[in-house]
Amino acid sequence: MTDPTTATQPAPDAAALTALLQSELAPALSDGALALDADVVAAHSADTALFCPAEGAVALVRARSTEDVQATLRFAHAHHVPVVPQGARTGISGGANAVPGCILLNLAGMDRILEVDAAEQTATVQPGVINQALKDHLREHGLAYPPDPGSVAISSIGGNVATNAGGLCCVKYGVTRDYVRQLKVVLADGSLATLGPRTAKGVAGLDLRGLFIGSEGTLGVVVEVTLRLVPQLAPPLTAVATFPSEAVAAGVVAEFMATGARPSMVEMLDGATLGMLNDYGDFGLDAGAGAMLLVQSDGSGDPASAQREVEEFARIAEEAGALDVGFTDDPADSEAMVATRRLAQPAYEKYAMAHGGGQLLDDICLPRARMAEFFERLAEVRAESGATVAVVAHAGDGNLHPAVFFDAGDPAEVARAERAFEQLMELGLALGGTITGEHGVGYLKREWLARELDPATQAMHRAVKQALDPLGILNPGKMLAALDG
Amino acid sequence: MTDPTTATQPAPDAAALTALLQSELAPALSDGALALDADVVAAHSADTALFCPAEGAVALVRARSTEDVQATLRFAHAHHVPVVPQGARTGISGGANAVPGCILLNLAGMDRILEVDAAEQTATVQPGVINQALKDHLREHGLAYPPDPGSVAISSIGGNVATNAGGLCCVKYGVTRDYVRQLKVVLADGSLATLGPRTAKGVAGLDLRGLFIGSEGTLGVVVEVTLRLVPQLAPPLTAVATFPSEAVAAGVVAEFMATGARPSMVEMLDGATLGMLNDYGDFGLDAGAGAMLLVQSDGSGDPASAQREVEEFARIAEEAGALDVGFTDDPADSEAMVATRRLAQPAYEKYAMAHGGGQLLDDICLPRARMAEFFERLAEVRAESGATVAVVAHAGDGNLHPAVFFDAGDPAEVARAERAFEQLMELGLALGGTITGEHGVGYLKREWLARELDPATQAMHRAVKQALDPLGILNPGKMLAALDG
Repeated sequence: MTDPTTATQPAPDAAALTALLQSELAPALSDGALALDADVVAAHSADTALFCPAEGAVALVRARSTEDVQATLRFAHAHHVPVVPQGARTGISGGANAVPGCILLNLAGMDRILEVDAAEQTATVQPGVINQALKDHLREHGLAYPPDPGSVAISSIGGNVATNAGGLCCVKYGVTRDYVRQLKVVLADGSLATLGPRTAKGVAGLDLRGLFIGSEGTLGVVVEVTLRLVPQLAPPLTAVATFPSEAVAAGVVAEFMATGARPSMVEMLDGATLGMLNDYGDFGLDAGAGAMLLVQSDGSGDPASAQREVEEFARIAEEAGALDVGFTDDPADSEAMVATRRLAQPAYEKYAMAHGGGQLLDDICLPRARMAEFFERLAEVRAESGATVAVVAHAGDGNLHPAVFFDAGDPAEVARAERAFEQLMELGLALGGTITGEHGVGYLKREWLARELDPATQAMHRAVKQALDPLGILNPGKMLAALDG
Repeated sequence: MTDPTTATQPAPDAAALTALLQSELAPALSDGALALDADVVAAHSADTALFCPAEGAVALVRARSTEDVQATLRFAHAHHVPVVPQGARTGISGGANAVPGCILLNLAGMDRILEVDAAEQTATVQPGVINQALKDHLREHGLAYPPDPGSVAISSIGGNVATNAGGLCCVKYGVTRDYVRQLKVVLADGSLATLGPRTAKGVAGLDLRGLFIGSEGTLGVVVEVTLRLVPQLAPPLTAVATFPSEAVAAGVVAEFMATGARPSMVEMLDGATLGMLNDYGDFGLDAGAGAMLLVQSDGSGDPASAQREVEEFARIAEEAGALDVGFTDDPADSEAMVATRRLAQPAYEKYAMAHGGGQLLDDICLPRARMAEFFERLAEVRAESGATVAVVAHAGDGNLHPAVFFDAGDPAEVARAERAFEQLMELGLALGGTITGEHGVGYLKREWLARELDPATQAMHRAVKQALDPLGILNPGKMLAALDG
């Protein structure tokens, strides 16, 4: 890395920066990679978060190669220009949003699958590869990359790494972090580093590979990822159960997981979500129920194990007072149920559009045994705010996504919704959990990160950031911006 | 963390330091925690590594509490005194060895299991808890903590975290890192930080928890660990096969693993190891074979899956020209085979004692498909060095432990053995691997770490170390000492 003292000039003003971009950066990039057109830049200035500023970008670099990324960072480092790395901009915390005077560094065009190594069961990809495209490609090889965030069809592997994305299968198969063998990253000064060996094990040095996973573009830019793969997963058995209340369903999940069960999916939808889904499509869900659980088990390839596991779930559900429990081993029916679950977000959007447009999607993670208590307290938040709050959850992991709906044109309602959103995070912390299980901090939760982390940990964050990005040019104003130290 | 500019006095000389330890540190510690007796200090000055200096410790602190650790670090920070954190001192890279003028900070006495949370399936322990003691305790709860380094009976959880210890089960169940939910650590200035939530998922901030795992005492001192647990593992089926050569056995492992098999153990012993084991005890191993593989499958609880998996292994082994393949589903026989494997190290020590006392145990990790090539090249190293080299391997992970034997009283033989040891690491890097899969860098491989890491990654290591330990008092001269940047 460059000694920061060698790069001391202040950031240039907008006109001077534009001239420098054209004269210095453009010739160093692939043809056409630099865009200065205000409409093009504006069209790339935000992810899908609400209430997050996204103004002031000066340029867009559509990187085509590692060299483009290095040239961009070298330029930014030399001229003290903020850089916001971006993938598919499907995030929901504002992490990819523009900041004033920044270059948007978009990696979506670096979308090649470079190698599938069947012997080592790894894939090496560029960061812009879409998660689902990788899954589809691997199927030909009989291999699988399990992490499956809700955005699986549209989010990129680089973005998944930057946010340590999770998903539905995490309860058995883990998160993005569990599948990263090696990263190539471009650092703040444009230098290229290879982090981690590609081997199954390795303890040579500090775990900087892990440090970059989930760092949301604040430490460097991922330009290549080697992922650990697994054999294609076995088709699961699926159980669906409805319950009189969210708290009862949550208690069933905690009890089921405490048996040591290894289900491959434990999703929860509350009554409000069931109603919104029925409004969105003809799914015939029991919107009179307080909650529904969707449980899958693949028995790690053994159908009899899967059968025993879903039966154990059914027994616990029935003893707890389930309204209804059903099974299917038909893959088409199973996939249809999961597809319905995945439509919760579009159903929320339809509901929001019909009710003033506002939706804030939260993402707390709790010890599983505290989920029932969360739902009891949620009733108070609903009553106090007057807001509609619908919940979907990766319940087997204790990872809850309450969505708060509001009329975006009514400032009082916006304020009540924001307060409800915050109360849910307070509740997450009070119940021994975290303010974000998988969506990340971005801009949206930067103040909340400072609530979650103790003073010594905040100081460590600042010190590590200062060490790796001494000029503070990498995604400033986001994840780490509100920490003390 | 304290601003380093507030602590600027140089380290005191030995006499002054002893006086300060007695007047300032002793009153801040639990009664009797501070030892200054030279014999006591010397007895705690080394782990089990060869060729690593261990001189010059001034004091030993036997910490009884987090407060003892904080007091020690505050004192060390104020007076610029090096601190070497230690667990059970079972390491083999010199990571726990004394450095001149240091305080040895021993955590072995902090050995309480604080909590087992059956609902969340976690255990919270102090760092001095012995790995096997935790396993035994968890059995009562029907739970398991899988990581099982060779030192499982004698090494501590804190040491396992500091080195990211592996073991025999890693091939299916992963390494220490995969089981750490939350760490409490004392930083260089004595402040206490909690890293990571205890929940199944969490992305709030940088992964400092992960950064501390495997950091070998260079960033802070672990004082509490919350571990993820799993249900007790199912009893495995065991297959044993012998082969005419190491390369053939290695090829069988690579082919077996490439099928997507999920064995719970794939251990390899070469012919030299088989001979040394027969010399050590009455095991009746076929020392005429070039190599033996010991494969277990637990079928994730399904005996039929386990049966299919070991049969698949047997088929591949026989097609490759195995000398003999046998099975057992008798737990006692299985345990006896694994116990024999675990005696390789004592057998090596007996052999070494009878042949001049010297043994250097290496620890490279390769892509599995390159192992056969490694063994072909190993023949050249053996011929060139004239040294006996025996190999045990966690072969399913590509993690090889070649032991080089030599007459410690013959300088020429020592030099040849050291050269062979280095050639094996060179070979590890040349074949796309790493210089250490699980033993760590410590003092022994600090120069080699600089060979493995690229310049930008070395600079990042130095920058992170400087950020978190600005005075450089934490385990100096070890893992990070030879890096540029």
